[in-house]
Amino acid sequence: MKPKVEAFIFDVFGTLVDWRYSIARSAEETFSNKGIDIDATAFADYWRGQYDPAMARIRTGNRGYVALDVLHYENLVATLAHFDLAGHFSEPELWQFSSAWERLDPWPEVVDGLTHLKQRAIIAPCSNGSIALMTRLAKYGGLPWDCILGADIAGNYKPQPEVYQACCSALRLSPDQVMMVACHNKDLIAARAAGLQTGFIPRPTEHGPDQSIDLGPEADWEAVVDRISDLSRWAE
Amino acid sequence: MKPKVEAFIFDVFGTLVDWRYSIARSAEETFSNKGIDIDATAFADYWRGQYDPAMARIRTGNRGYVALDVLHYENLVATLAHFDLAGHFSEPELWQFSSAWERLDPWPEVVDGLTHLKQRAIIAPCSNGSIALMTRLAKYGGLPWDCILGADIAGNYKPQPEVYQACCSALRLSPDQVMMVACHNKDLIAARAAGLQTGFIPRPTEHGPDQSIDLGPEADWEAVVDRISDLSRWAE
Repeated sequence: MKPKVEAFIFDVFGTLVDWRYSIARSAEETFSNKGIDIDATAFADYWRGQYDPAMARIRTGNRGYVALDVLHYENLVATLAHFDLAGHFSEPELWQFSSAWERLDPWPEVVDGLTHLKQRAIIAPCSNGSIALMTRLAKYGGLPWDCILGADIAGNYKPQPEVYQACCSALRLSPDQVMMVACHNKDLIAARAAGLQTGFIPRPTEHGPDQSIDLGPEADWEAVVDRISDLSRWAE
Repeated sequence: MKPKVEAFIFDVFGTLVDWRYSIARSAEETFSNKGIDIDATAFADYWRGQYDPAMARIRTGNRGYVALDVLHYENLVATLAHFDLAGHFSEPELWQFSSAWERLDPWPEVVDGLTHLKQRAIIAPCSNGSIALMTRLAKYGGLPWDCILGADIAGNYKPQPEVYQACCSALRLSPDQVMMVACHNKDLIAARAAGLQTGFIPRPTEHGPDQSIDLGPEADWEAVVDRISDLSRWAE
């Protein structure tokens, strides 16, 4: 019998916010202002595609920890080069463009669900996004966090076990009092290995209409729910 | 001309919450349950009196960083010994007693003031309290933080400069875009030395009716206000 959950910590990109639509929208606006015609969704997908390789160098120790804001900026530069668009943007314009990651729309049920859950337990992001990024994203979307946890607290990136462990330690809770919630099975595999409880919420259109991964739970996660508010019974 | 303030970071004990009344109330209840008659306010003052010396050992490098929760617990043990009350409490009872620091009442204007300010800037605690402590205290008192900053982020205690600097870095802001708000002049001296803007709010009864320190500003702080909501014009 697992103890009741004292804190729910959440993956953010995909699980809570629709990064693909939101980044494509920002890119569309940015390129339109420059008179550049481009497939903004393909641009968003390529930009996001640089995300995991950029973190991998840090996870393996080949680079010291830098916040995701820096990686997003570097990956934007690489993405613009890939689309033969290097040179169209000044450095301040690149930072402004990169701040699109601070303006991602929550899925429709998210704000109500978190607000409900917050009455019953601590809620916090456990994202690879920095404190700076998560704070601004929360203000943009109205995510009512109790505190901001995640990569910055640990100085490393998920799915490294120390990220999950650092979130529990920061809250002075044992891992089995904390539930990691994500729409990505890999995130939950790592969280479970670190001793946390796990909750899966499917987001079958995170990657668009043809998504082929993470359509359902791939293990016996403690919770499998369609809506965040349904998680409250694990806090009882 | 200083830039507009993008984030207000706050001292908490004294500046936002009435620790003395609240700790005395918890102590009164706890001792009453044990049938022990004691001057609960004197107990609160003595317990709080151990706070600075306990942190000093860490600031000077004579002890590695431990969260304030641990220091509060150790200081409670020392305080009970001082009052000849050692041995009346089990370890779980001591931890429960020590968690009184998570249940401190905000001064009357605080929740409304922070809620107002949050519409205009990032708001966060920059306290020597841990993330765990600040998170629970915010839930108890309804403090609507955007994120939790402070000692845990820096691995050191105020007034060490790295605590203020770590808060700015975590938000990806330069120190002059951040205002440290406190009712303690010493806190503001250190924040200014670290490059932050400074705001003073008098709390002339923090230490009770006979308070003799911090009755007013002792330097030309950028802001001197009676109410948190008055800080919003520095964010314009």
